[in-house]
Amino acid sequence: MRGLYIGRFQPFHYGHLMAIKWILTQVDELIIAIGSAQYSHTTRNPFTTGERIEMIWRTLKAEGLLDKCIIAVVPDTDSCHSLWIAMIKLYCPRFDVAFTNDPLSYRLLEEAGIKVRKIPFFKREIYNATRIRELMIRGEEKWRNYVPKEVSDVIDEVHGVERLRFLATQSDRPQ
Amino acid sequence: MRGLYIGRFQPFHYGHLMAIKWILTQVDELIIAIGSAQYSHTTRNPFTTGERIEMIWRTLKAEGLLDKCIIAVVPDTDSCHSLWIAMIKLYCPRFDVAFTNDPLSYRLLEEAGIKVRKIPFFKREIYNATRIRELMIRGEEKWRNYVPKEVSDVIDEVHGVERLRFLATQSDRPQ
Amino acid sequence: MRGLYIGRFQPFHYGHLMAIKWILTQVDELIIAIGSAQYSHTTRNPFTTGERIEMIWRTLKAEGLLDKCIIAVVPDTDSCHSLWIAMIKLYCPRFDVAFTNDPLSYRLLEEAGIKVRKIPFFKREIYNATRIRELMIRGEEKWRNYVPKEVSDVIDEVHGVERLRFLATQSDRPQ
Amino acid sequence: MRGLYIGRFQPFHYGHLMAIKWILTQVDELIIAIGSAQYSHTTRNPFTTGERIEMIWRTLKAEGLLDKCIIAVVPDTDSCHSLWIAMIKLYCPRFDVAFTNDPLSYRLLEEAGIKVRKIPFFKREIYNATRIRELMIRGEEKWRNYVPKEVSDVIDEVHGVERLRFLATQSDRPQ
Amino acid sequence: MRGLYIGRFQPFHYGHLMAIKWILTQVDELIIAIGSAQYSHTTRNPFTTGERIEMIWRTLKAEGLLDKCIIAVVPDTDSCHSLWIAMIKLYCPRFDVAFTNDPLSYRLLEEAGIKVRKIPFFKREIYNATRIRELMIRGEEKWRNYVPKEVSDVIDEVHGVERLRFLATQSDRPQ
Amino acid sequence: MRGLYIGRFQPFHYGHLMAIKWILTQVDELIIAIGSAQYSHTTRNPFTTGERIEMIWRTLKAEGLLDKCIIAVVPDTDSCHSLWIAMIKLYCPRFDVAFTNDPLSYRLLEEAGIKVRKIPFFKREIYNATRIRELMIRGEEKWRNYVPKEVSDVIDEVHGVERLRFLATQSDRPQ
Repeated sequence: MRGLYIGRFQPFHYGHLMAIKWILTQVDELIIAIGSAQYSHTTRNPFTTGERIEMIWRTLKAEGLLDKCIIAVVPDTDSCHSLWIAMIKLYCPRFDVAFTNDPLSYRLLEEAGIKVRKIPFFKREIYNATRIRELMIRGEEKWRNYVPKEVSDVIDEVHGVERLRFLATQSDRPQ
Repeated sequence: MRGLYIGRFQPFHYGHLMAIKWILTQVDELIIAIGSAQYSHTTRNPFTTGERIEMIWRTLKAEGLLDKCIIAVVPDTDSCHSLWIAMIKLYCPRFDVAFTNDPLSYRLLEEAGIKVRKIPFFKREIYNATRIRELMIRGEEKWRNYVPKEVSDVIDEVHGVERLRFLATQSDRPQ
Repeated sequence: MRGLYIGRFQPFHYGHLMAIKWILTQVDELIIAIGSAQYSHTTRNPFTTGERIEMIWRTLKAEGLLDKCIIAVVPDTDSCHSLWIAMIKLYCPRFDVAFTNDPLSYRLLEEAGIKVRKIPFFKREIYNATRIRELMIRGEEKWRNYVPKEVSDVIDEVHGVERLRFLATQSDRPQ
Repeated sequence: MRGLYIGRFQPFHYGHLMAIKWILTQVDELIIAIGSAQYSHTTRNPFTTGERIEMIWRTLKAEGLLDKCIIAVVPDTDSCHSLWIAMIKLYCPRFDVAFTNDPLSYRLLEEAGIKVRKIPFFKREIYNATRIRELMIRGEEKWRNYVPKEVSDVIDEVHGVERLRFLATQSDRPQ
Repeated sequence: MRGLYIGRFQPFHYGHLMAIKWILTQVDELIIAIGSAQYSHTTRNPFTTGERIEMIWRTLKAEGLLDKCIIAVVPDTDSCHSLWIAMIKLYCPRFDVAFTNDPLSYRLLEEAGIKVRKIPFFKREIYNATRIRELMIRGEEKWRNYVPKEVSDVIDEVHGVERLRFLATQSDRPQ
Repeated sequence: MRGLYIGRFQPFHYGHLMAIKWILTQVDELIIAIGSAQYSHTTRNPFTTGERIEMIWRTLKAEGLLDKCIIAVVPDTDSCHSLWIAMIKLYCPRFDVAFTNDPLSYRLLEEAGIKVRKIPFFKREIYNATRIRELMIRGEEKWRNYVPKEVSDVIDEVHGVERLRFLATQSDRPQ
């Protein structure tokens, strides 16, 4: 049986990795689908799809999970939500069951007749992408505790913290 | 003479129906144009264009108005407002006068040289789509009082209240 | 039971009308979906969606079919065919069975798990939109024999033959 | 050497003109790129690209700067920021150095390996497009003090203040 | 009175320049609108919009026409021709009369109620962009005879002939 | 050092696999980028991106190459070729050198300052996607000789030959 796990992974963190390991106790193979693929360089979506593929691929390699996980990407359809399921079907290999805790995704998948299941949370109070980005913006180094070494390497290589802090700066342009 | 009446109809309610009947005292035929056609599954635009066509068509049929009203759909052009009038001309049969109370639509139609008129309000304090969606989200059954029976049938068939309440739920996904 | 009949209707002709009447012997209600909705002013797609709605609505009115037929429009997704079914679901009211003789549409509908049936041809050698457009381009008046009076009225009102002949002219612009 | 100066110019004001004159002390020729080209008729982007070209061209003509400045336009890529630099390269003539005070633009240009420099501010507390639009909305005539005569002429010709005040009106449509 | 002259200018040649000079005997000011703005790197549209602006601006400067001509750009709307006029209105300053010899443009402008006039041809058998591109592809230097010196300079600077010949090469990729 | 290998992979065949193995003698890691990601269900692009990921991932797994190859996808930008390089940078992890035999890709990569190299051909007369699709359309089973077992499995699972033959059928719809 094959599962689908969709997220934005901005950035990929230990909570995601724990979710993947748990899902792999339920299914044989897992498609990890990177959503909102076309966005980058915003405080909410700072990393490009290429950077997010790199984070996930290196972590899966280090964890020895490359032969059980397939990375896919899915562009966002903005508020044309009725098209989103079609995008998933177009951009992802086939799957039997989708895993998500996001209400809208859950609803859209369920309305389309796809089997959906929730994922238990793993220390959500600390493994949380919004919080990790906030730590980066505030210049606190402890964000590194919440992501795999492979992910912090990628973020360092692309000067990700500097980028995010820059993006969070108030604009002062003459208009 | 033929009129154009444009709205989002999320959902179609008695205020819309009264407006249509009033406009039909001013013109012979009326194009009812469903705007923001590509959106759905958001708290502001919960219903698909197909569902909104169904609501309006069934109501017009019950009211015996099908031979005076033509249903059309117009995709939104986001903030490219200069293209919106072109979209109306492309997607709608010709018309002589447009009816709207929305300032932006009024302005765009008028700048394009189209004759525009306002519509008297009909009990706007109760016949109001935002308010009707709020009642649905709060689980109050009295929303049914403000829409034609044909509309509440469609909403029930697509589990629309359940969908809207789901969409209004706060997201709790790990990010 | 409700059917879906999708076409480009460039222009709507007696072959389409006969197909609609035949389908209505198989189903109670019919959605007539106008495809390639965003195109116009080409030799293959000369008429706007608004003009095509007008042709069909007037014909249905004259035939007394407005209370059995719902007109819908579906924008084309170019070569992103995997999204086309999602567009149909978004822009059309629900239906039980689709009717088409087009191989690609048939295939896409069938792959999506939708029930599809073929339509018997009705004098295809004469009721054929490509042939009707060719007659118009050649300036032969007998194209009028192949479309309902309501359709030729609309074409005359928008100077459709003149438009089509103009579009068929070879470009001679300096480049 | 040639510079690039990108802005939304909603509207073009004396602060922009002073920036252009200062940049022209640094470079021989300057590309003035009008960003967010596809938007108009919102309170933040009230003027069309055509109107903004007109404001800038007339001012440059009056200032005798037409033979040193090239006007270009660049459509916005929404949140697909990684594509924005490619849009600039596609829509603008080549340049050696970009001038901007906007953090996101600065970052994107710098990440793409383009030389970027900041512009000294010129009485930013009064020459500020947001503030000028607010004066227009409030009906205060002194906005005219902050833009060249050529710009206020264009705004008057297109009834720009009336348009902006209209856009700022609260919507009261039935929904 | 102000005119609009729209073309693709792939590349800008003496035929275009003669047309501009002739139009300037009819009107006081002229908007030169570069169409199909988003395309480049095809045998039909080899040059980017930026490169085309550069060709035209330098030629106008050399001819002393910068204070009578305004350069604008208009993205193409593919086969959504009904939107094209709206794009022109959005991206170009206002004008009183359009000049074109292209049947589709002529028709669309006329249907939109815009005054349109034809341009006399100036040695069309030699001043013709398709023919000039063919000369470049065949490696014949005489293409230089048909374009202003400023244009051949731009083409040389961007290695335009090499680009075009490359694009014209048959693809031999493994598929 | 890391390479980029971009193709449409319609379908993935032994020529592609041999190219990958050869490139891996030149670089340590390889990004395999699936181009024209949004298309499917045409005779030229019959398979979805999801199906193509599946073909490549299963083959890489069988070949033990998953820890050296990263699969990425890149949507096509139609004729907006100037944006294509930006799409590659957005959707792919970073790379040092690109490998391609396609003239347009070669040119665009080179103009963007990216290091590009050609790939030696491996029995191009038989390992050729166009030829493989033609064999499928003609119903000849020997197409199976030219693709890895994992690819023919995927094609069988999605009824790919049946789909392709269907797509190749002449349309006989009434128009």
